[in-house]
Amino acid sequence: MSDFPKSERNIVRRRAERGRYDRDTVHAILDAASLCHLGFVVEGQPFVIPTLYGRAGDTIYVHGSSVSRMLTSLSEGIRACVTVTLNDGIVLARSAFHHSMNYRSVTAFGTGLVIEGDDDKLTALKLISENVLRGRWDDVREPTKKELNVTTVIAIEIEEAAAKIREGDPKDDARDYDLPVWAGVLPIETSYGSPVADTKLGEGIEIPEYIRHLYSDESGK
Amino acid sequence: MSDFPKSERNIVRRRAERGRYDRDTVHAILDAASLCHLGFVVEGQPFVIPTLYGRAGDTIYVHGSSVSRMLTSLSEGIRACVTVTLNDGIVLARSAFHHSMNYRSVTAFGTGLVIEGDDDKLTALKLISENVLRGRWDDVREPTKKELNVTTVIAIEIEEAAAKIREGDPKDDARDYDLPVWAGVLPIETSYGSPVADTKLGEGIEIPEYIRHLYSDESGK
Repeated sequence: MSDFPKSERNIVRRRAERGRYDRDTVHAILDAASLCHLGFVVEGQPFVIPTLYGRAGDTIYVHGSSVSRMLTSLSEGIRACVTVTLNDGIVLARSAFHHSMNYRSVTAFGTGLVIEGDDDKLTALKLISENVLRGRWDDVREPTKKELNVTTVIAIEIEEAAAKIREGDPKDDARDYDLPVWAGVLPIETSYGSPVADTKLGEGIEIPEYIRHLYSDESGK
Repeated sequence: MSDFPKSERNIVRRRAERGRYDRDTVHAILDAASLCHLGFVVEGQPFVIPTLYGRAGDTIYVHGSSVSRMLTSLSEGIRACVTVTLNDGIVLARSAFHHSMNYRSVTAFGTGLVIEGDDDKLTALKLISENVLRGRWDDVREPTKKELNVTTVIAIEIEEAAAKIREGDPKDDARDYDLPVWAGVLPIETSYGSPVADTKLGEGIEIPEYIRHLYSDESGK
């Protein structure tokens, strides 16, 4: 797929060799996460809010209560910056200076647009839900008309984006490779633990397959 | 400890009952993570950049190359928003509407101040390093004068902050508890994997104890 356009806004300045602008890379990182940090500005003050999202094409969907600061602000069509970071490991070099992280991140720029029709809202909400836990949406009660009314859904079409990736070994200064210091990568892993049933869960309701395959049950059951 | 002051900026509007303003809670969440998402504004455009940090008292320290957009912008003393999010689990309700996340987050507001003296820079860099991996700093080569010169260190004193915490079971509508849907929490766990040695690691250099105690070695060695 094609590249996102480059501009003053999304060009990677520091460690430019880590920057990627192709849609395949940007989409893949967005699809590997479900929580973004969304930045917006109110009267000169930046706000950064963690929120769940879904993606279709070059559009990122977020949702929330219509009383939240994030949603009321984005509803006015202001600029947004959506950043997603997957933290893959600590890069341990022989010098403090060359320590780093292995990561995959996307920084995407666009403006908020309120999704108005109930059908379009439902489609976007399902996208967000399925991005968090595939298979869940069809298993639960759909939103009512009243619930949709108090939910604001915002579409942010990506105008520009950059991915940034670091992977692999530390890069030390030539003279430091002889130091007697352990060097390498300490991987960071994110996984699901065994589900904790709601204390009010009815009897005989089993954990569905779309959840069961996500974790390893250490009790061996 | 005392509370951070409340203002238009940090007051939790949505789900106000989840908001906390006491320093103990804010500090504990900041100390439980090492990656923040830092927001700042350049000519009306918000930027959100993932970066490592350290904390001492009410001050958050970040660092980076003096050529990076984040560091050059913060060096001008502009407003910053530092957000830290620990994602603890997916809250699975019986209705799509009541799905949520269990999380601990902090949103902190302040302005950047450049740290000038080498001693103060070293102290801040050690804070960041130790927040990422305790014990590492004293094991590696310290920064040289030249390395310090190309590293910008910024202190952001927290003027206002809010923590937001959600934990425990889903909260469903009374009429939905009879639905035959599995409900509860799917925990999200972050852990360290077995370290991957640098391909250029010298012979006989063992993994130090401050790393060894962080992961469970599945090979049983």
